[in-house]
Amino acid sequence: MFQTKLTSALNIEYPILQAPMAGGPTTPDLVAAVSNSGGLGNLGAGYLTPEQIRSAILEIRQRTDRPFGVNLFVPEQPSVSEETIAGMNDLLNQYRVELGIATNPSIPKLSEMFEEQTQVLLEENVPVFSFTFGILKQEVIQTMKKRGIFVVGTATTVEEAMQLESAGVDAIVAQGSEAGGHRGTFLRNAADALIGIMALVPQIADHVSVPVVASGGIMDGRGLVASLTLGASAVQMGTAFLASPESGAHAAYKQKVMSSNEDCTEVTCAYSGKAARGIRTKFMNDLRFYRGTIPAYPIQNALTRDIRQAAAKANNPAYMSLWAGQGLRLATDRAAAATIKQTIEQANDLLKRMSIFEL
Amino acid sequence: MFQTKLTSALNIEYPILQAPMAGGPTTPDLVAAVSNSGGLGNLGAGYLTPEQIRSAILEIRQRTDRPFGVNLFVPEQPSVSEETIAGMNDLLNQYRVELGIATNPSIPKLSEMFEEQTQVLLEENVPVFSFTFGILKQEVIQTMKKRGIFVVGTATTVEEAMQLESAGVDAIVAQGSEAGGHRGTFLRNAADALIGIMALVPQIADHVSVPVVASGGIMDGRGLVASLTLGASAVQMGTAFLASPESGAHAAYKQKVMSSNEDCTEVTCAYSGKAARGIRTKFMNDLRFYRGTIPAYPIQNALTRDIRQAAAKANNPAYMSLWAGQGLRLATDRAAAATIKQTIEQANDLLKRMSIFEL
Repeated sequence: MFQTKLTSALNIEYPILQAPMAGGPTTPDLVAAVSNSGGLGNLGAGYLTPEQIRSAILEIRQRTDRPFGVNLFVPEQPSVSEETIAGMNDLLNQYRVELGIATNPSIPKLSEMFEEQTQVLLEENVPVFSFTFGILKQEVIQTMKKRGIFVVGTATTVEEAMQLESAGVDAIVAQGSEAGGHRGTFLRNAADALIGIMALVPQIADHVSVPVVASGGIMDGRGLVASLTLGASAVQMGTAFLASPESGAHAAYKQKVMSSNEDCTEVTCAYSGKAARGIRTKFMNDLRFYRGTIPAYPIQNALTRDIRQAAAKANNPAYMSLWAGQGLRLATDRAAAATIKQTIEQANDLLKRMSIFEL
Repeated sequence: MFQTKLTSALNIEYPILQAPMAGGPTTPDLVAAVSNSGGLGNLGAGYLTPEQIRSAILEIRQRTDRPFGVNLFVPEQPSVSEETIAGMNDLLNQYRVELGIATNPSIPKLSEMFEEQTQVLLEENVPVFSFTFGILKQEVIQTMKKRGIFVVGTATTVEEAMQLESAGVDAIVAQGSEAGGHRGTFLRNAADALIGIMALVPQIADHVSVPVVASGGIMDGRGLVASLTLGASAVQMGTAFLASPESGAHAAYKQKVMSSNEDCTEVTCAYSGKAARGIRTKFMNDLRFYRGTIPAYPIQNALTRDIRQAAAKANNPAYMSLWAGQGLRLATDRAAAATIKQTIEQANDLLKRMSIFEL
C-alpha cells in the first residue's frame, strides 16, 4: 500500500486523479467510477451553472461515498471591443450558414457566477476543490480550508507554483506542455509556459513544500511511476479517460481520440480565446489565417458555443473542440475502473522490476 | 551493475549520453571527461570541417580510451531567393553596424562537406555515429554498421522513429519538446512535433524494437530513472553539461545558463533558419517582428555567423545563440565527472527507495 501525504490527505487508495475536463466528459458516472476504483474523480464544473453543479454533486454522491473533487475556473473579465466581436462574428457567420444555424446570435450574458459556484461547493461541502486560470483570493482559500475542503491550484511554471503555495493551497497540479485542454498559465503568455513534465515537475518539487500532482501525457503505469520518480505525489490523467464509456465526450470526439496520434494536437486560442491543447481541426486551421483579433476568453468561448453545439448535433468534428493531450496513441476505450486497475498493475510490475536495478 | 542491450552494445558503464551540442560546447575535454566517467561523450561535429573533426577525434583519443560518439547533420539544400537573402541582410546590417563589423559580408560558400565528414568518421573508425535533421541513405548506414560503428538516429515523432528503424539504425534518440538546441524533426513542421518526453518516449518505445534514448529536460537522477521507467534504455543530457568547466560554451552563455529559469527558453528559427530551443535573447525577440521570410537552414545560419561571432567577442549575449533545454533551474557548473557521479548516486538512491513501494 502506497501512502503519501497527498493520498492520505485525500483519503484515496491510488495516487491517480482524473482530470476535471470541463464541457462534457466528466459526467457524474465518470467521476464516481474513478473514485470507486480508488482514484479521485473530478467534476469539471467551470461551465456549469450553480444549479447544474449542485445536481451533479448529488448524482455523484448517489454513485459513490468516496471522496471526489470539483474544479472551477478563476473568473476573467477582459474588455473586448464591439469591433473585435463584430469582426469575429463576420468570420463565424460562414460556419453558422454552413451548419444551418442563425447568424449573429445574441451572446448570452456572461454573468459573474463564480461566487455562486463556490457557494454551492461550500454548502455541499465537497471533499476537494481545485481551480485553474489563476489564484483565488486568500480569503476564499481559507474559507474552503476551514470547512475541511482540500484546495488544489494549477501551475505551469515554478513561479506560479510558488505563488499558489503562498496563497495557501494544499496541493499543486503541475500542468506540463503535454496536457490536453486549457492551459492554466496565469503569470505569462501561455506560449511562454509550455514546459514539459520531465522538466517542470522536478523544478516545481524543488521550490514548494506542498504535494505536486503531475499532469500531461500520463496514460499508463509507466507515466505514473515516472511522475512519482520526478517528485510528484500523484498524477492527473485526462485523455486516458476521455474515450471511456463513462465519459460524456461526444461519440465523434471519442472516435477522434481513439484514432489520433501524438503529433495530431496543437495549442490554439481559436475556440475559447484562451490557449488550449486539442486535436487539430479544420476550425483551428481556418482561424490561423484570421487577420483580426480573436476575442479573449471567455468572450470567444461564448461566441463559438452555438457553432460547437451545432457541429456536435451534426456529428461533425471539424468545428468541435477536441481537447486532448499528447499521449493519444495510448488512449483506450476501456471503462475507467479498468484503466485504473491496469495502470496500477503496470506500475507495480515496473516497481518490482526496477527494485532489482542498480545503476 | 545496470546493463541494457544499449549499454552493452555501446560498452559504457552508465546509461548516460552527453548530447552532441554543436557550435562549441562539446570540446574534446568534455567528450573525454564524460566517457572517462562511464557515460558516452559525443562530439557535435555538424559545423566542423573534415580536418577539424579528425583533429578533435585525435584529441579525444589522447584523453580517453573509452567509447565516444560523433554527431553530424543530415545535409539540406534549400533554394532561397536572392531577394530573401538581401531582405535578411538589410535587417542584419543594423546589428553589424552596432557590433562594428562589415555589412553585407560575402556568405561563405556552403560547400557540401557531409560526404567528407562521414569519410573521416569511417577512416577514424569512431565507435558511435549519430545524426539528426533526417535519415541517411541506407547504404551509408550499412557501410557504417559493417565497419562496426554503432549508428544512432534522432526522432521527434513516432513516425520518424519507425522510419529510422526501417533505415537500419541501431538506436534512436527520442528528442522531447524540452530539449535545447536544434529540433531533429524531419517529417513535419518543427512546431507540429514538440512532443514532451512523458508522452514521446512510451509511444516510441511501443513502436520500435531498437533501444530508445530519452532526450530533453533530463538534468539529474530523477530524470534518468523516470526516463528508464518510460521505456528508454538511456538518457541524453546536454544542458546539464553546458556550464561545466570542460564545456566550450562562451562564458557569457554559461552565465546565462546558470541564471535562467525553466520558462526562459523558446523555439526560434531566428539564428539558423531551423527551429531550435534556446534562452530568449533580444535577437530572437527582434526577429519575431521581421515581416520578410527568414532564409531556410543552413542559409540563415551562414548569414548570422558573423553577428554571433562578433557578439561573442564583445561578451554580448543579446545576439548570441544560447541553446538550452527547459531544465535550466537544475543547471550546475560542476565538472562533467561530478554531474555523472551525482546523477547515478541520486538514481540509485531513488531506485532503492522505490523498491519498497507498492501502489
